[in-house]
Amino acid sequence: MNSATELWQRYQDWLYYHPELGFYLDISRMRFTDAFVAMMKSKFERAFADMQALEAGAIANPDEQRMVGHYWLRRPELAPAETLRQDIITTIERVEAFAKAIHTGAIHPPDRPKFTDILSIGIGGSALGPQFVSQALAGARPPLKISFIDNTDPDGIDLVLGQLGDRLATTLAIVISKSGGTPEAANGMKEVQYAYKQAGLDFAKYAVAVTGIGSGLEKLAKSEGWLDVFPMHDWIGGRTSELSAVGLLPAALEGIDIRGMLAGARMMDEATRVQDLKQNPAALLAMSWYFSGNGKGEKDMVVLPYKDRLLLFSRYLQQLVMESLGKEKDLDGNVVYQGIAVYGNKGSTDQHAYVQQLREGIPNFFLTFIEVLADTTDNSFHPELEPGVTSGDYLSGLLQGSRQALYDNGRDSITVTIPTVSGVTVGALIALYERAVSFYASLVNINAYHQPGVEAGKKAAAQVLELQKRVVRALTTEAQPISIYQLAAKIDAISDTETIYRILRHLAANGKVHLEGSMGKPSSLLVSVSR
Amino acid sequence: MNSATELWQRYQDWLYYHPELGFYLDISRMRFTDAFVAMMKSKFERAFADMQALEAGAIANPDEQRMVGHYWLRRPELAPAETLRQDIITTIERVEAFAKAIHTGAIHPPDRPKFTDILSIGIGGSALGPQFVSQALAGARPPLKISFIDNTDPDGIDLVLGQLGDRLATTLAIVISKSGGTPEAANGMKEVQYAYKQAGLDFAKYAVAVTGIGSGLEKLAKSEGWLDVFPMHDWIGGRTSELSAVGLLPAALEGIDIRGMLAGARMMDEATRVQDLKQNPAALLAMSWYFSGNGKGEKDMVVLPYKDRLLLFSRYLQQLVMESLGKEKDLDGNVVYQGIAVYGNKGSTDQHAYVQQLREGIPNFFLTFIEVLADTTDNSFHPELEPGVTSGDYLSGLLQGSRQALYDNGRDSITVTIPTVSGVTVGALIALYERAVSFYASLVNINAYHQPGVEAGKKAAAQVLELQKRVVRALTTEAQPISIYQLAAKIDAISDTETIYRILRHLAANGKVHLEGSMGKPSSLLVSVSR
Repeated sequence: MNSATELWQRYQDWLYYHPELGFYLDISRMRFTDAFVAMMKSKFERAFADMQALEAGAIANPDEQRMVGHYWLRRPELAPAETLRQDIITTIERVEAFAKAIHTGAIHPPDRPKFTDILSIGIGGSALGPQFVSQALAGARPPLKISFIDNTDPDGIDLVLGQLGDRLATTLAIVISKSGGTPEAANGMKEVQYAYKQAGLDFAKYAVAVTGIGSGLEKLAKSEGWLDVFPMHDWIGGRTSELSAVGLLPAALEGIDIRGMLAGARMMDEATRVQDLKQNPAALLAMSWYFSGNGKGEKDMVVLPYKDRLLLFSRYLQQLVMESLGKEKDLDGNVVYQGIAVYGNKGSTDQHAYVQQLREGIPNFFLTFIEVLADTTDNSFHPELEPGVTSGDYLSGLLQGSRQALYDNGRDSITVTIPTVSGVTVGALIALYERAVSFYASLVNINAYHQPGVEAGKKAAAQVLELQKRVVRALTTEAQPISIYQLAAKIDAISDTETIYRILRHLAANGKVHLEGSMGKPSSLLVSVSR
Repeated sequence: MNSATELWQRYQDWLYYHPELGFYLDISRMRFTDAFVAMMKSKFERAFADMQALEAGAIANPDEQRMVGHYWLRRPELAPAETLRQDIITTIERVEAFAKAIHTGAIHPPDRPKFTDILSIGIGGSALGPQFVSQALAGARPPLKISFIDNTDPDGIDLVLGQLGDRLATTLAIVISKSGGTPEAANGMKEVQYAYKQAGLDFAKYAVAVTGIGSGLEKLAKSEGWLDVFPMHDWIGGRTSELSAVGLLPAALEGIDIRGMLAGARMMDEATRVQDLKQNPAALLAMSWYFSGNGKGEKDMVVLPYKDRLLLFSRYLQQLVMESLGKEKDLDGNVVYQGIAVYGNKGSTDQHAYVQQLREGIPNFFLTFIEVLADTTDNSFHPELEPGVTSGDYLSGLLQGSRQALYDNGRDSITVTIPTVSGVTVGALIALYERAVSFYASLVNINAYHQPGVEAGKKAAAQVLELQKRVVRALTTEAQPISIYQLAAKIDAISDTETIYRILRHLAANGKVHLEGSMGKPSSLLVSVSR
């Protein structure tokens, strides 16, 4: 299939087009054979059946005994109970009403007519979607400008608060956490509460929560009289929460077309319910991934949107794909070490970064080009750079040239094409990849909806913090500096000596303990508490 | 080596520490054996010899017949000629003087007392370093705030210019391009020139160039009387240019300690000249990379700085590592398909994104943790979240917990530790990885200093643009709509039919041609020029 004519035929044979969305998917540059497709068709029978069960409210996440209902957000009538349906509809209406009240100033900060900024506090699924959507759709001058605290880094928090400066007095804080117990979000909230207090501002009058019903955060928000509380339902996972209040609230506040996002996702959900591989773009994607990595993630997924606004799409997909598919065991309990590594930034910028390696180096990846047909969002005028050629033509030419040259060098690629970057197309992209991940999980027989490794990471960190407390307690009772080994022995934690050393090094750098000796030789160090 | 005691001994045995920099490197969690180290020692003899030759001015990039001198920037006395030495010193002094003149208002925009903003126009090596350093070191309130145009995306340009708004009248434009011929940079400049003109501003009075001596851009800047021109020497590659005028000029304008950056890099250069594997941190890094990927890049490099300011370090390294190491052929002409894929954002944020896969999924990577000991840059006060525990303790605990849990699950990691994020440590990190890449290239016998694939990408794009011109010319002579096949035949480009179709689809979306028929069926389409 190397002649241009054969390739052009293959292109047309495999081209998927969705008329209402103006959406194209091209998988002609993945080198699968007809025999492979025939083999996959039977595998997809199960994937389609799984999809139906999922949407009908099956317990798709057996670990956590919960349903998986992010599809219902876009078509509430699918939800398996009237209370769910009504709750989805009401939440969207409440989000819109709240955003309107903020925009008009009906809800405003004490002593000021309007809010000017949003400070979003959340991590993982509570940050990546809102960050991606903000960059894609908020534009240069949104009604409220959003900043994010998505980590437990005090220096990073200083930076965000420093940039807000006096505008903190007109900043709406959104705390997003399902349980309210995720340390990073809880810490961020406490840090921000403290900052408002230091500025003489009553945090509750600036705060809104998006959280699980009955969570500690909900109770706190209600008892303190925050501006509002929006629900984070237990049938929505963090990485599929962008079209719940988690994503819709900040988006609506930024003036983004949330009904468009929901409509785009709904149309794509519909298109990806079609039980025919060739007529289902998510199935085509999942099949392509399976082909490329042999169903084992043997190739990385490099995502290159040729559009600045979509820069964060690959980071959003990193979470969606890797957290969903990166699993040790399959549904039968076999150890499988599944997953697909995802990375990428944007084209053509990355052509001047690492596309050198993609073209000529280790062929351990497949590419996904994201193409946007319209050069600008608002038909703004741009000068011709040479007769008949604009900067948008260059961008388009660079995508095409790159796709062609990579293919000629044996590197496969998928191309997703959307007409423009809008609420509708962004919603469609989100829904497309959600479903593709779901199909792929069925194909390789894993649970796409849990994340046991994240819990394990939290536990490991909690143990380190617990050890830190014991270390500090023990040190305060010592009159003289002692060695790290002595300290470890004293708290009966010899096997944690290295961790204790690292805890002490961190505490010393922040003035809480004093280390003397040769810093490069841990065994030489004596430690005492700073007094 | 699984007992905690043995691991702690291994940690101490392999710990590298640099006292002046307060820099630590820990490779104890890479599972190499003594036999492997013995084997590598002989390989490093050649790597050390290559390094000496490089620094002494050997033609290290035979393809382009040029020397590789980014080391000289940090210690001009190493440069092999007096003119080079003087040029380096003078350039740094001129950068400092220019920044001072901008800060004091001695150089100011027409009719305004001071510049408030910088608009940097450049791509690849002309953008990634300045972006990384700005986020790491500019702080919340720099003397001038920087924006970047690093693509040929008109929509992205609209977004940046829209955010600047009226401040364009106090915005200093820096055009960074070695040749002046890189399309993205050239297009960005033309777009920005046009925007200044539309705003009634004389671009030359706002513009400064960083470009190769004798380049078209230098000539343009001089003939138009731009504010200044700084040199981009041919012995500095784009991806190692951060400590040349390319990176120093924007950094100095943002109030960043550029002498500190140079000093940090100089100290690290010195440390990585030591011809003893165990005493050379860059050699230890390169050895670890070689071990992990079997000298063939079999594992991806995941870079996780636990510090918001260092978010872009992985993206910076993506270019440095992948463009340097991603090569088809070795120095003897054998096809080797070398490279190491690099990705990552920041911890602990990524623990809530894809660390699920790293912990439990496909083990196709090794990790690099970047640890920063000081919690804040300016000793700002942060409240305790629970007795004895701050958000910085959490961040530290999450890094430690993650490293431990990943290792226990068979995932290797390197930990780089710096005392704080400063000019000195950022300069040191840059120099460390530059040298590590150089060593690794020697180990696997490739040229780290060319990028033939980037040229190929430009060529492919130019062909597409050329085809676009022929397509449009041909269409304007047609009275009636014709099919894509007819059009391709008419311009004698049947084998380019698919490319022509894609060109037309893009032109149609931007109102330049008209397509009728069924969009999902390219063969059904008739095309005419929009009149």
